This record gives sequence, C-alpha cells and structure tokens, in this order.
Amino acid sequence: MTGIHHAENHFTASESVRDVVIGMADGLTVPFALAAGLSGAVSSTGVIVIAGLAEIAAGSIAMGLGGYLAARTDREHYASERTREHREIHEMPAAEREEVATIFRGYGLDDDQATPVVSAICSDPDRWVDFMMRYELGLEAPDPGRAVKSALTIGLSYVVGGLVPLVPYMTTGSVLKGLAVSAAVTLLALFAFGAVKGRLTGVKPLFGGLQTVGIGGIAAVVAFGIARWIS
Amino acid sequence: MTGIHHAENHFTASESVRDVVIGMADGLTVPFALAAGLSGAVSSTGVIVIAGLAEIAAGSIAMGLGGYLAARTDREHYASERTREHREIHEMPAAEREEVATIFRGYGLDDDQATPVVSAICSDPDRWVDFMMRYELGLEAPDPGRAVKSALTIGLSYVVGGLVPLVPYMTTGSVLKGLAVSAAVTLLALFAFGAVKGRLTGVKPLFGGLQTVGIGGIAAVVAFGIARWIS
Repeated sequence: MTGIHHAENHFTASESVRDVVIGMADGLTVPFALAAGLSGAVSSTGVIVIAGLAEIAAGSIAMGLGGYLAARTDREHYASERTREHREIHEMPAAEREEVATIFRGYGLDDDQATPVVSAICSDPDRWVDFMMRYELGLEAPDPGRAVKSALTIGLSYVVGGLVPLVPYMTTGSVLKGLAVSAAVTLLALFAFGAVKGRLTGVKPLFGGLQTVGIGGIAAVVAFGIARWIS
Repeated sequence: MTGIHHAENHFTASESVRDVVIGMADGLTVPFALAAGLSGAVSSTGVIVIAGLAEIAAGSIAMGLGGYLAARTDREHYASERTREHREIHEMPAAEREEVATIFRGYGLDDDQATPVVSAICSDPDRWVDFMMRYELGLEAPDPGRAVKSALTIGLSYVVGGLVPLVPYMTTGSVLKGLAVSAAVTLLALFAFGAVKGRLTGVKPLFGGLQTVGIGGIAAVVAFGIARWIS
C-alpha cells in the first residue's frame, strides 16, 4: 500500500486539468484585457464584442492547434530519438554501455558494483533503450491519444474563459457599464481560478488568486493605456 | 570525446530559443487573425490597429508574466517535493529504500545485484534524494535565473511577432489593402518561422512551415467569418 499512498502524496494535477488551466487562464486574461483596452478607445460595444469574439476564435485555434502539433511533435521526437538509441546500441555498444556505467558511477558506485547492474540493463535491447531514453535524455513515452484530447480541452477552455469578460458588453448598451461589469466579473473569476490553480500546483490559494488577478489587471490597464494613447 | 559528440547528436533547441519560438508563434498568429477578423467587420484601419496593439499588449503580458509565474511555480514545486523526499527518507527509510530497489528490479536485476546499488545510492541522503527526484518523480532542478529571462524573451518575441501583421494596416489607408498585404507578409513569416521551428524540433522544414501557415490561416478565416457574421 505504500506505493499507492505515496502516489497520492505526490499528486498535483492530471494532464487534462492542466490543459483546462492553460486554456482558461489565457481565455480569461487576453479577451478581458483586449475588451478593456478597446473600452478606452471606441464608443460602441458592438466593435468590442466583434473584436473579442474574433480574438477568442483566433486564440482558441492558435492554442488548441498549437497544443495538438506540440503534442504530435513530442511524439515524433520521442520515436526518432528511440530509433537513434536503438541504432547506437547496435553500432557502438561499448560506448553506450559506458554511458550507462557513467550514470551509476555518478551515484557513487565503484566499477565492481556497477558492472552487474550495467550488464543486467544492457542484456535486453528494449530495456537498455528504455533506460537511455529516460535517464540519459529525460524523455518519457508520450500518451498516443493525448494530442487530440489536449487540443480540444485547451481550445474549449479558452472559449469558455473568453466569454466571461465579453458577456457584460453584450448585455449592457454602454461601453463604460460593460467595462465595469466585465472587470468585476472577470477579476472575480480570475481570483477563483487562480486559487484553484494554486491548490493544484501547490501554491497557497490566496497567493495564487492574487497572481492571476495581477496578471489580468496589469494586462488590462496596459492595453487600456495604449488604446487610449493612440486613439 | 564520445560524450560531446553524443550531446551534439541529441541537440534540439536551447530553452531561450524555445521561448522565442513560443512567443513569436502566438505573436504572429493571434494579432494577425484578430486583424483579419476585424477586416471583415469594420471600415477603419484605425480601429484594427488599436485592437491589434491592445491585443499585443494583453497577449505579451499574459504570456510573459504567465511564463514567469509558471517557472517560479516549477521551482517552488521542486523545492517542496525535495523537502518532502528528505523527510520521507528520514521518517521511513525502509519504504524509500524499497522504492529504489523496485526501480532496479524493473530493469531486470535480482536482489543480489540490486542490493549494492541501492546501498551505494542510499548511503548519502543528498544523493538518495537526487535519485528519487529524478527517477521516481521525473523532476530536474530548475535553473534559478530562468523565470525572469523566460518571461522577457517570451513577451518581447510576442511583441515582435505581433507587429508583423499590424504594420501593413498602419501604412495603408484601406482595410482591404491592409488585409491583403498583412496576409501576404504574415503567412510568409509564419512559413519561414515554422520551417526554422521544424528544424529545431526535428520536423521537416517544409512540413513545419505548412503547419504554422495552416494554423494562422485557419485562425484568420474563422475569425473573419465570425466577425462578418455578427456585424
């Protein structure tokens, strides 16, 4: 039971939860700051809503497809490094054996202690390559179904997050009223979201909440200042 | 010399290069798609430039500060897991020794072979914790100066990337002319950028270039469609 207990101790966040966090953090922040920025420059909520929805479309696709391609590239990178390691242990087994031995000497083993370990690991090509992938290159086999799921999760989370700051502009006729309600609702959402994210990543909830509110607030203020300055 | 040769073989991209890639990929894509989207809905290049600059401000701050906080959270997470491992090897050394042994049994060592290795690793608390951090939890010690450098690199790359699609709108008086020049320049930049990124991550340059152009193009077309549809 130690293993299970231990695993729970070290649990931080599943990959799906992390994808939701990644997508929603940017979805709440960027459309909010863009809408707030435009509020300093245009007088129609219509333009703000159009720009906001265009940004949500652009941002969710860029992040979602970007996440998909990144996951696929990771998978291809893993496969090509694995092929290379297989070739290397075939073409220069002595040098590769020496690399395994070096790892263990680094942990304070002398040659007499290291030799049986190295022999055991190198007796099976797959096991040998597994060891090199993980301990020399620090690469773990990526989950094959993850690319598509990750893309959809990040993209949808961005859309959901992005609608929060925009709905107030859709339902109020005035830019200033829209900005006030949008800022209140979004900063509250950013705080709640940052607190949850903090819990998942081991940061104190209050501190995590203040961090995400700070990022969103700074981004909005700077965007507002720039938009007002050039308009 | 094998070690050096080997390291070069596996070289893909330094962390700074990766930060530039991350920032510039989004900087080229999102402001481009936003500007293209707004081109389907508004008749003044002024509004597009304001919205674009507000987006660049918002996006670069969100990504830069987000990157900074993520790097800092990684560092705190590493430190807290390290403290926990130190406590665990102190409070329940037998269970932790057994975890080290389990890793080596997984590589096909029998108990006689594993015992001296486990003893060597566990003879020094720091070495023992190092081993658990790296091989049990898959965590490597983060570079302490990276958070600030990473934030600045990502943020500035986003700004540079984002100005590419906007400059055409600043220099031409007409929305349609701006859109045409912006699309031509940005898609070319996305292609060149994707090709370089492909080289760094081990993807074929032509394929890498087409991928980034595809993401930018799809994002722009969808943003344009949404903006036109609701306006």
